[in-house]
Amino acid sequence: MAKKLFIPGPVEVHQDVLNAMSVPMMGHRSADYAALHQRVTDKLKKVLYTEGRVFLSTSSAFGVMEGAVRNLVQKRCVNFCNGAFSDKWHDVTKRCGIEADAVHAEWGKPILPEMVDEALKTGKYDAMTIVHNETSTGTMSPLEEIAEVMKEYPDISFIVDTVSSMSGAKVEVDILGLDVCVASVQKAFGLPPGLAVFTVSEKALEKAKSTPNRGYYFDFLEFAKNDEKHNTPSTPCISQIHALGVQLDRILKEGIEERFARHAKMAEKTREWILSKGFELFAPEGYRSNTLTSGKNSKDADLEGLKKKLSERGYVFDNGYGKIKNKTFRIAHMADIMPEDLDDLFKVIESIWAEN
Amino acid sequence: MAKKLFIPGPVEVHQDVLNAMSVPMMGHRSADYAALHQRVTDKLKKVLYTEGRVFLSTSSAFGVMEGAVRNLVQKRCVNFCNGAFSDKWHDVTKRCGIEADAVHAEWGKPILPEMVDEALKTGKYDAMTIVHNETSTGTMSPLEEIAEVMKEYPDISFIVDTVSSMSGAKVEVDILGLDVCVASVQKAFGLPPGLAVFTVSEKALEKAKSTPNRGYYFDFLEFAKNDEKHNTPSTPCISQIHALGVQLDRILKEGIEERFARHAKMAEKTREWILSKGFELFAPEGYRSNTLTSGKNSKDADLEGLKKKLSERGYVFDNGYGKIKNKTFRIAHMADIMPEDLDDLFKVIESIWAEN
Repeated sequence: MAKKLFIPGPVEVHQDVLNAMSVPMMGHRSADYAALHQRVTDKLKKVLYTEGRVFLSTSSAFGVMEGAVRNLVQKRCVNFCNGAFSDKWHDVTKRCGIEADAVHAEWGKPILPEMVDEALKTGKYDAMTIVHNETSTGTMSPLEEIAEVMKEYPDISFIVDTVSSMSGAKVEVDILGLDVCVASVQKAFGLPPGLAVFTVSEKALEKAKSTPNRGYYFDFLEFAKNDEKHNTPSTPCISQIHALGVQLDRILKEGIEERFARHAKMAEKTREWILSKGFELFAPEGYRSNTLTSGKNSKDADLEGLKKKLSERGYVFDNGYGKIKNKTFRIAHMADIMPEDLDDLFKVIESIWAEN
Repeated sequence: MAKKLFIPGPVEVHQDVLNAMSVPMMGHRSADYAALHQRVTDKLKKVLYTEGRVFLSTSSAFGVMEGAVRNLVQKRCVNFCNGAFSDKWHDVTKRCGIEADAVHAEWGKPILPEMVDEALKTGKYDAMTIVHNETSTGTMSPLEEIAEVMKEYPDISFIVDTVSSMSGAKVEVDILGLDVCVASVQKAFGLPPGLAVFTVSEKALEKAKSTPNRGYYFDFLEFAKNDEKHNTPSTPCISQIHALGVQLDRILKEGIEERFARHAKMAEKTREWILSKGFELFAPEGYRSNTLTSGKNSKDADLEGLKKKLSERGYVFDNGYGKIKNKTFRIAHMADIMPEDLDDLFKVIESIWAEN
């Protein structure tokens, strides 16, 4: 039996999108594929507010995140860390043999522009990484303010993970001046996993030319070269790309701004419900994610038990990630989740609690 | 309109397998996913004649091929090259910053055991790569004989691309002593692209522990660690894994040996037809692929024209790859292609030629 997913990826996928996964195969070096690729990337440019390049990688986003540091760090990288995925990015950077330092904020707290400025003004770095929306904590760092700081450092590559925010919250790639912006499609896009979407600025592509040991599978210059023919370096996951095309039509039909507003409204509703049940919110005011909300288990509730009972009733609920498991819980309200789906979830949780 | 594919990947996919791509989503850290993962890898072990580890990578095979050299070359690599994909593997090895030499055979010719022995006895190498079935030329190198040579060099990692042979021709991973054996599923497996399947020996995993800069996305030790929980390091392409499960049931129902025999029979049929039309075969006797056949354009036929006319009639035909384009042509007879599909293709080609 399929369960209703309220976790931050994989998420519920609309039936029309699932059906698009079953389209018969085509050759990936064909004119038909190039036309599909171009249609999809043209629509992605609207969602990402960019006139630059948008690439499709057959991988999860972390492959591209690793690729970004392999392509763009020539001197030393600073990884801003405030949760499980940003911490991991620092670890992965070092595992690539790249010199890197971490600047930490407490889990749940945002990365602030002054932290970025302080690190970069040391002159030690030629690249920085930041996670816009920490999926482990429900914290959204102020990307616009950070982008203002980054304008002072045009030679430092600005590499941003928008894994769980892209297409659920506004990220204007060109206005913000992002060098890399990456997401997996199984989050706010509402697709099955297996595909990552990313942008690379022309400035970053130029820099990559002089970075050694970029490898092949995540070599940004290979993506750029193949993009000229509306194609990918390696055989792409054609089924997911068909599905992405269908989902982008649905997204554009809803309206991009309307979609962001729906996510913001669902975030507001979830925060209110969590507070009304006597829990606190994990992220501070002003830095709370629009695509998922993390509650602090301030009442020491039995979250494992709740998760189990919800599962029996057909709902998948998340009782926190990594070192904050059971100390927090996460409710994802992204992609095709609607406010009424949240009403439904909240009622079921309340009925479980009423039984106790 | 969907066209019938006679190219060496992507290939025709059975409707039941396409339908499995549309199964509703599940969380990838759930018990349901672990059960799916275990079912699929258990069945893969039968197809690969291994009791060792089988990993699933959300990527094309080339990602894993890059990963293999990043994980397993500590000193110097020798890449055996006899076609576009083996040549590319050498290029990719160097692009990773790894010291490597190429040993070349002419395109279309096999890699022979004596070539392997000659290179390895220099003592310069701790890893070798070879492409079992060169998809660009239809040449199958004698893996069993090469494996005999490799028994003399137990400390040299034996890394094999079986991209277009795995599940279409017998590759006994354990008996051959392969350290890495990798394939993409859009070839002889008969699935949509987006997933690679690979084995890594325990000896290779042990070696990887002391290889620096393995990165993360293709770090074999990450795959091994997650395999303990029947899972993957990053979010897997769940839809493809569902489809692989369905296709493995179909493969096991046909019978593995029966499947290999069907591929051999189709290869024989295709060779006979090519010769009967006055063309030569590109690969020499004894080294011809069982999953795709390459003909030499010895009659200087208009292959571009043939490709175009076949396309108009709903068939996708390949007029050679890379530097041997139009000098050769390739007919893939792998996965779910049946002998009668080839009869159909041959009749259509003959009718096109009859028109001229």
